[in-house]
Amino acid sequence: MPPYKLVSREYQKENTIIKLGEITIGGGNVCVIAGPCSVENREQLVDLAVQLKEMGVSILRGGVFKPRTSPYDFQGLGLEGLKILAEAREIAGLPVITEVLDIREIEVVCRYADIVQIGSRNMQNFSLLKEVGKIKKPVLLKRGLSATLEEWLSAAEYILAEGNRQVILCERGIRSFETYTRNTFDINAIPAVKQLSHLPLFADPSHGTGRRELVGPVSKAALAAGADGIMVEVHPDPAKALSDGPQSLKPRELEIMLNELSNFRISFNQKVSA
Amino acid sequence: MPPYKLVSREYQKENTIIKLGEITIGGGNVCVIAGPCSVENREQLVDLAVQLKEMGVSILRGGVFKPRTSPYDFQGLGLEGLKILAEAREIAGLPVITEVLDIREIEVVCRYADIVQIGSRNMQNFSLLKEVGKIKKPVLLKRGLSATLEEWLSAAEYILAEGNRQVILCERGIRSFETYTRNTFDINAIPAVKQLSHLPLFADPSHGTGRRELVGPVSKAALAAGADGIMVEVHPDPAKALSDGPQSLKPRELEIMLNELSNFRISFNQKVSA
Amino acid sequence: MPPYKLVSREYQKENTIIKLGEITIGGGNVCVIAGPCSVENREQLVDLAVQLKEMGVSILRGGVFKPRTSPYDFQGLGLEGLKILAEAREIAGLPVITEVLDIREIEVVCRYADIVQIGSRNMQNFSLLKEVGKIKKPVLLKRGLSATLEEWLSAAEYILAEGNRQVILCERGIRSFETYTRNTFDINAIPAVKQLSHLPLFADPSHGTGRRELVGPVSKAALAAGADGIMVEVHPDPAKALSDGPQSLKPRELEIMLNELSNFRISFNQKVSA
Amino acid sequence: MPPYKLVSREYQKENTIIKLGEITIGGGNVCVIAGPCSVENREQLVDLAVQLKEMGVSILRGGVFKPRTSPYDFQGLGLEGLKILAEAREIAGLPVITEVLDIREIEVVCRYADIVQIGSRNMQNFSLLKEVGKIKKPVLLKRGLSATLEEWLSAAEYILAEGNRQVILCERGIRSFETYTRNTFDINAIPAVKQLSHLPLFADPSHGTGRRELVGPVSKAALAAGADGIMVEVHPDPAKALSDGPQSLKPRELEIMLNELSNFRISFNQKVSA
Repeated sequence: MPPYKLVSREYQKENTIIKLGEITIGGGNVCVIAGPCSVENREQLVDLAVQLKEMGVSILRGGVFKPRTSPYDFQGLGLEGLKILAEAREIAGLPVITEVLDIREIEVVCRYADIVQIGSRNMQNFSLLKEVGKIKKPVLLKRGLSATLEEWLSAAEYILAEGNRQVILCERGIRSFETYTRNTFDINAIPAVKQLSHLPLFADPSHGTGRRELVGPVSKAALAAGADGIMVEVHPDPAKALSDGPQSLKPRELEIMLNELSNFRISFNQKVSA
Repeated sequence: MPPYKLVSREYQKENTIIKLGEITIGGGNVCVIAGPCSVENREQLVDLAVQLKEMGVSILRGGVFKPRTSPYDFQGLGLEGLKILAEAREIAGLPVITEVLDIREIEVVCRYADIVQIGSRNMQNFSLLKEVGKIKKPVLLKRGLSATLEEWLSAAEYILAEGNRQVILCERGIRSFETYTRNTFDINAIPAVKQLSHLPLFADPSHGTGRRELVGPVSKAALAAGADGIMVEVHPDPAKALSDGPQSLKPRELEIMLNELSNFRISFNQKVSA
Repeated sequence: MPPYKLVSREYQKENTIIKLGEITIGGGNVCVIAGPCSVENREQLVDLAVQLKEMGVSILRGGVFKPRTSPYDFQGLGLEGLKILAEAREIAGLPVITEVLDIREIEVVCRYADIVQIGSRNMQNFSLLKEVGKIKKPVLLKRGLSATLEEWLSAAEYILAEGNRQVILCERGIRSFETYTRNTFDINAIPAVKQLSHLPLFADPSHGTGRRELVGPVSKAALAAGADGIMVEVHPDPAKALSDGPQSLKPRELEIMLNELSNFRISFNQKVSA
Repeated sequence: MPPYKLVSREYQKENTIIKLGEITIGGGNVCVIAGPCSVENREQLVDLAVQLKEMGVSILRGGVFKPRTSPYDFQGLGLEGLKILAEAREIAGLPVITEVLDIREIEVVCRYADIVQIGSRNMQNFSLLKEVGKIKKPVLLKRGLSATLEEWLSAAEYILAEGNRQVILCERGIRSFETYTRNTFDINAIPAVKQLSHLPLFADPSHGTGRRELVGPVSKAALAAGADGIMVEVHPDPAKALSDGPQSLKPRELEIMLNELSNFRISFNQKVSA
C-alpha cells in the first residue's frame, strides 16, 4: 500500500484537468510555461511577456521570492516583483505562475498569481504544503532534488488532503553523480507518475539539464513520454541574467523550439496513442 | 570563493564553543544527545530521561512536530509533547532539543526547548533559517538528504547572517544508491567540515545508518574522525515505537555503547592529536 | 580539453555511419535491436526471431555469456548459445548481436555474431576494450552503471585508438537513489553525447527502466531526443524468463510499440529538424 | 536469501585470517599497506619502501598495470614495474601487492607479487574473478564505484567458489552527488560487511576521499568502525606524481599519521570491545 491515496489512479481513474481561463492543463493538452528565472525589471518582463504570448506560450513564469543557496545572492524583488508580474499579465494577456517560499507570503502571492509554485527545496516543507492545500488556486509542485516518486506523490497528498485538488506535478531533474549536466532529468518518472497518478505532470528541462543546448531535445523527450506540458526559462540576455543564465534560452531560440514542438506535438498526437 | 563567510575558518579561526548550563558543546568536548524519535507519552519519556541522565547523556532529544512522508502517518504530539519534554527536563535535569518545522511554532518551541533543531527536509527552508537566526537559543542544523557541503554551510550562513552565532551542524547521512542502509553516513564530511568551519559538528548515526546494529561502530568512527558529539535515537521498546523503531537502541544497548565510547574517548583524547 | 579525441565532434564533424548488409546504423536512421536477455533454447529463439523480423526489427539480440551478480545464477549457454544465435540469423535473416565478457571469447563470438557488445560492467575493462579495438566488427559499448559521459566517451576512445572506428554507444540507465525503477535512464545523455561525439547512439529502455510498462514511453522519449536506435528485451513468456523477466516485453507488446514508434518516427523525421 | 554463500558469516562463523610470512591479516590485527599509486622508477620505489618499512608499514603497494580513464594517460610500467617492485621487496623486506587488469597478466603478476589486487572497475569482471579464484595467493577485492554490498560480496563469492579462500575486501568509497571529495567513503559498509562476512576488510582512505588532508581522520574512523587495515597512497613528491597526486601523503605525513594511529590502536584494542 502506498502512503498516499487521493493522488492515486486507484482513487481517481480519469485525469485531473485544470481550467485557467481558456487554458486547459492536463488530459492530453500540451501547455507551455515560459519566462525568466527571476523578475528583474518591469520593462524587460513586459517586453518578454508580449513576445512569449505571440509565440504561443500559455503561461508566464517569473520568480520574485528566490530560494538561493547563499544569503548573499540576489533574493528576488518580492512584492515589487509581484506587481511587475501582474502588469505583464495584463498587458500580454497571460496567466502567471510564481514560487512561494513562506506561509506568510501565500496571501499576497495569491493576490497576484494564477498558479502558485512550490519549489524543489520545499517539496517536504509540510507546513507550506498544508497551507497551499487551503487556497483556491492551482499549485505546481516540483519534485525534490532527491525525492523518490513515492515521497513526491505523498507530498502532493498533503495538498489534496487539505482540500485543494488542483495540483500540477513537475519533474525537474534529480541529483546524481553526473556533473556534465546540472541535474539528471528523470524521464522514467514521466510515464511512471502518469500511471500512478491522475494529476497533470509537467517537465522542467531548464533545471533538468542546466544547459541551454539540451533544453529542446529534453522537452521533446518529455512530451513524447507523456508529459502534459513544459516549463522553460527564457531571458532576453542570458549572459546578464541575475540567475540561471546558462540554462536560459533567448526568446528567438524558444520560438524555434516551439515551432518544432508544435509540429511534433500535432503529428505525435494524431498518430501515436500514448 | 565559497558562497559563505561567517561560518568559515577563514573568518574565525577558533572553534565556536556553545555553553548550555554546565554543558560545553564544541572545542574538543564530546557530547551525547539521546532520546526517542517521537515523544509518545509522559511516563515513557520521563522514565527514559532519568535513565539517560544516569548513563551520562548530556541532552535529551524528542520530536513533537514530526516531518512525515505521508500526511496519514503520526504527526507528533505538538504542544502536549512540548510540555512532556519540559517536564522530563525538570525531573531528569537534562536540557532538551526538539525540531521546529514551521515559523509559527518557533516561539512556543523556544519556550520549552534549550536547542532548536532544523531537520534535513528543511535545510533549505530559507524562511525558517532566517527566523531561527533571530532567536537567542542554539540551533542544530542537519544536513539535507542530498546537500553538498557547500550548500549545508551556506544554509548555516543564513542563520549566522541574522545574528545567531550558536549553530551546531549535524551530519545524518546522505542519499546514495546503497539500499542495505537507510542512508550513507558521509564520514568524509566530518573532517572536511571541521576544516572548513569553526562550528561544532555532530553525527547522527541513527539516521545515518537506519540500522540499530551499526549505530555503535559508526558513532565511534564519527568521534574518531573529529565529531564533537553524537545524537542517538533510543526507545524503551523499539518494536512498538511510533517512528524509527529499526534504528532505535534500547536503553541498555545505549549504556553499553556509551561505556565503550567513554573508554574510547578518554584514550583517544589522551593519546591522539586530532 | 577532454581526455578523448577520436570520438569527438571536433575530430570528426560528420556522423559515423555503420553499414551492416542492408542496415544503416547512425545518421538519422532509426534502428531497432530486439531479442531475449538470454538465449535459452533453439526453438524459442528461432520462433521469436522470425516474428521479430516480420515486425520490422533490424537486429536480433541474445545473451550467451551472461554477467550475473551471483556465481550461482544462470551463466548463459556459451558456445551452444552462439550456434543457436547463428541458426536464428540464417532462418530469420537478421544480423545478431551478443555480449562478450572475456578476451578469450572474442574470436569465437566474432565467428558467429555481427556486432559485439561490451556490457555496462565491462565499460572500463580496458583489456577487453583494447582487444575489441582490433576486430573488424562493430562494437556496441554500453555506458557503465555510474560512468560519467567523459568516462564513457574515453572508454570508446580505447576502442577507436586501436583502429576500430565502428563503435555504437548505448545509454542503458545509471544508478541513482530512486528504487521504483531499476535504473534511471539518463535522457540528458542522448542530446549531450550526440553533440560531443559523432558515434551512433542507442538507447536501452529495458535496462534503463527495469519495468515493462515504461519501455514504450522511454523508447519514444529517447528517439525524440535524438537516439539512433533502441535495444529492447523481448521474451515469449516473460514470467518464465531465465533473466530480466520483469523488463521484457511479449512479442505482441513489442509489435504494438513498434507500430506507434514507426508512425511517430515518420512524422517526427518529416516535421522536426533535430 | 543472499546470492552468496561461502563468504557469509552463516557459512563460517570465525574470521578468516590470512598469513603472509610474519604478517597476519584479519582477526583483530591492524595492518597497513602503503606505497605509491604507480611504480615510477627503481630508485624512488626502493627508497620509499625502506622508509615505509621503518615506519611500521606491513605491505608495499605499487601499481604497474594502471586502469586509466583515458588511453592517453600513463598506463604503468608493466613488467618492468613488476621487477622494480620485486627488488624493493627484497631490499626493504616487505611483501608487495599490485593490481591485475587482464587474465593474461595473472601468471606474471603472481610471480612477483604476494597479494593480487582486483580494482574497482573490475569488481564485476567475472572472468578475471574466476581466474584469480584459481591462484594460491591472497586477492584484495576493491568495492566497485557503485556496487551494493550484496554485489560486492557476490563478486567475492566468485573467487571463493573457484577454491581461493584468501580474499581481502577493501572499501574505497562510492560515487555520490558530493563533489568536494573524489568519492564518498562508505563508513557504514565497515561494520555491515564485518557482520555479513568473515573475510578481512580493509579501507582505502586515499581513494575514499581523494584529498590528502582527509586521509588521517578517515583512517582512524575506519579502524574505529572495525576495519582490519588500511591502504594508503604515499609519494615522495605528490605534486609530481604521475597519478593520484592530490590524495597522496608525503612519507613524513604518513609517519605522523601512523604514530597517531598506533597510539589510537593500542588504546582502542585494550579498552574497547569492537
